Amino acid sequence: MTASDDDRLARVALSRLTEPGDPRIAIAVAELGAPRTREFLSDERQLDPSARDVATRLKGLDPAADLERAARLGLRYVVPGDPEWPSQLDDLHHSELLDQRGGPPLGLWVKGPTRLDQLARSVAVVGSRSATTYGTEVAAEIAAVLVRAGHPVVSGAAFGIDQAAHRGALGVEGANVAVLACGADRAYPTAHRDLLDHLARTSAVVAEVPPGCAPTRGRFLSRNRLIAALTRGTVVVEAAARSGALNTASWALRLNRMVMGVPGPVSQAQSEGVHQLIRSGAATLVTRGDEVLEVVGDVGTHLTSPPRAEARRRDALGPREQRILDAVPFARPAGVDSVATTAGLSLVEVASGLRRLLRLGLVESSPQGWRLTAAAQE
Amino acid sequence: MTASDDDRLARVALSRLTEPGDPRIAIAVAELGAPRTREFLSDERQLDPSARDVATRLKGLDPAADLERAARLGLRYVVPGDPEWPSQLDDLHHSELLDQRGGPPLGLWVKGPTRLDQLARSVAVVGSRSATTYGTEVAAEIAAVLVRAGHPVVSGAAFGIDQAAHRGALGVEGANVAVLACGADRAYPTAHRDLLDHLARTSAVVAEVPPGCAPTRGRFLSRNRLIAALTRGTVVVEAAARSGALNTASWALRLNRMVMGVPGPVSQAQSEGVHQLIRSGAATLVTRGDEVLEVVGDVGTHLTSPPRAEARRRDALGPREQRILDAVPFARPAGVDSVATTAGLSLVEVASGLRRLLRLGLVESSPQGWRLTAAAQE
Repeated sequence: MTASDDDRLARVALSRLTEPGDPRIAIAVAELGAPRTREFLSDERQLDPSARDVATRLKGLDPAADLERAARLGLRYVVPGDPEWPSQLDDLHHSELLDQRGGPPLGLWVKGPTRLDQLARSVAVVGSRSATTYGTEVAAEIAAVLVRAGHPVVSGAAFGIDQAAHRGALGVEGANVAVLACGADRAYPTAHRDLLDHLARTSAVVAEVPPGCAPTRGRFLSRNRLIAALTRGTVVVEAAARSGALNTASWALRLNRMVMGVPGPVSQAQSEGVHQLIRSGAATLVTRGDEVLEVVGDVGTHLTSPPRAEARRRDALGPREQRILDAVPFARPAGVDSVATTAGLSLVEVASGLRRLLRLGLVESSPQGWRLTAAAQE
Repeated sequence: MTASDDDRLARVALSRLTEPGDPRIAIAVAELGAPRTREFLSDERQLDPSARDVATRLKGLDPAADLERAARLGLRYVVPGDPEWPSQLDDLHHSELLDQRGGPPLGLWVKGPTRLDQLARSVAVVGSRSATTYGTEVAAEIAAVLVRAGHPVVSGAAFGIDQAAHRGALGVEGANVAVLACGADRAYPTAHRDLLDHLARTSAVVAEVPPGCAPTRGRFLSRNRLIAALTRGTVVVEAAARSGALNTASWALRLNRMVMGVPGPVSQAQSEGVHQLIRSGAATLVTRGDEVLEVVGDVGTHLTSPPRAEARRRDALGPREQRILDAVPFARPAGVDSVATTAGLSLVEVASGLRRLLRLGLVESSPQGWRLTAAAQE
């Protein structure tokens, strides 16, 4: 057995024993390495009496058999040092804890052809499980634009926004990765089994907890840190005031990732948390995929032009015609003399200018005089 | 005639002769004073031949008669130096031009009991004429909260958001001021005659152009600078990509006033301009009246707490119960032993903890084991 295999087996064993995101384990592994941490925890004499069952449980594990079983399920275990290891996860070494969780994962269980080191440009699209139709449509559009531009989409395969993000990216060739709070062999929610099977066939399903593990609230919180850490930025599409998506956004902020939020009606609870993120300055407001690209893209590659109403005929006018147009009333029609007085121009100039504006559809003429058309008023 | 009367009459005459926001007049008046500017423009010999008609027109004016006619209509002319002069308008002396417009007004025609020097804490609520029901509801709520908190509301009496802001503030005692692009004696749009009459009776209708003048596009642009300059901040509720409300926001930015924007669905054209303002960092996102108060209020007087979902039962749990709850699966039920392993606690502790969580409605028990309730999952 090579040293590397030793490390991998120790990590499998430790991940069976401990909860994901336990910072004590992350620190021990960083200090001692995984094999020595495993040894230490296997030695009853070194442990506090209250923790002796840890040693007993650790001895009962068979990580080599675990890896074999996982391989039969189509899963591989990716650990630091593997060529596929996504090095951006190492940022978790240095970030503060959140909800007493933190640290890089011991390893990641992966099912699917996408290599994790291909996720350097990935973007998370997350949000409320009880999403609105509006939110799911925006999430799908953003995800499709991201993947088309070569940014893998990462989400959590939950109902609502997560599902919409994965589905939005389905039609486009590119990586579309689900990170789960349960084992990567399981389907949670079960209604998403087909979706998860598809992602595992075409891209990747990823988990920190070993195969077979059930999702718990704590595991969701730890999973959120991985979604934030794997990606270059997190887009929150809808999130109520205490939604789990805000937890992902908090992780992204701690990790100096970009945080973006999609606004919605202020009357909708699902947008409250997003508005709060934008209002506080934590998130950049984005309204569509290409605005997300501008935030997460490589410098200078994606510059959106601000949305403009169709360039109006008015823009083609010279300064004198502009001045005449400015002098034509909105409401009651005015005579040429009155327009000339307002514009401070001669009657002749104004009369010929008005005829040009008439041809452009910007003013209209009646027996009572001249006034702006509806088209000129917007 | 006192020097002050002389100044007032000169301003009336100049305002009849020139368009509002003409920076050349503002500069001349600032340098020479209004009476000497009037004299200068009345002297044909001093003017370029092309401007000789200015002198002729100026001589034909009778500002004293103008003031008398205005007084009969219930209008007064407020000029710099009057006790009622809103000194915040003097900021216009120093601001850059926008659309070749700028400078403080020569004076303001006012109809109504509200004194203009009471507008130091006022806030503008403006937006699209083609507003949505959503937008008008939010505008009305914000205006009502502002006036109730002692912040006069200023708007432009246009259709849509302006109207909604004025109407929202109607039910509350306090100042509710319309600034028009036409004479303060006129009703534009005519459909708002009753609204404007009401505002003139109970608060104030204000205009830079003399009585009788019609609204023109140029006068709307100049009017927008007054709305921005009179107020402490501008709230844009809805604005399409090139809406006039964005022009008011640009003036507010130039004048170092606060700019706020209400988000809406990204699919709605009426919110596009607002989203752009927020996205660019020009505007702060606000979702309701008390968030506006936080921005425009005196320091420390209005601190909103971020919207929170109702504090959940979970928050009352101790750390050990929290840990047990975190270990209960979402999906398939788990036995007490499995929960205990995940939580890293003894069977006895977990069994008694689960019973407490059951009473709190956070977990449910079945023959298959324990799982989270729907209530615990959000």
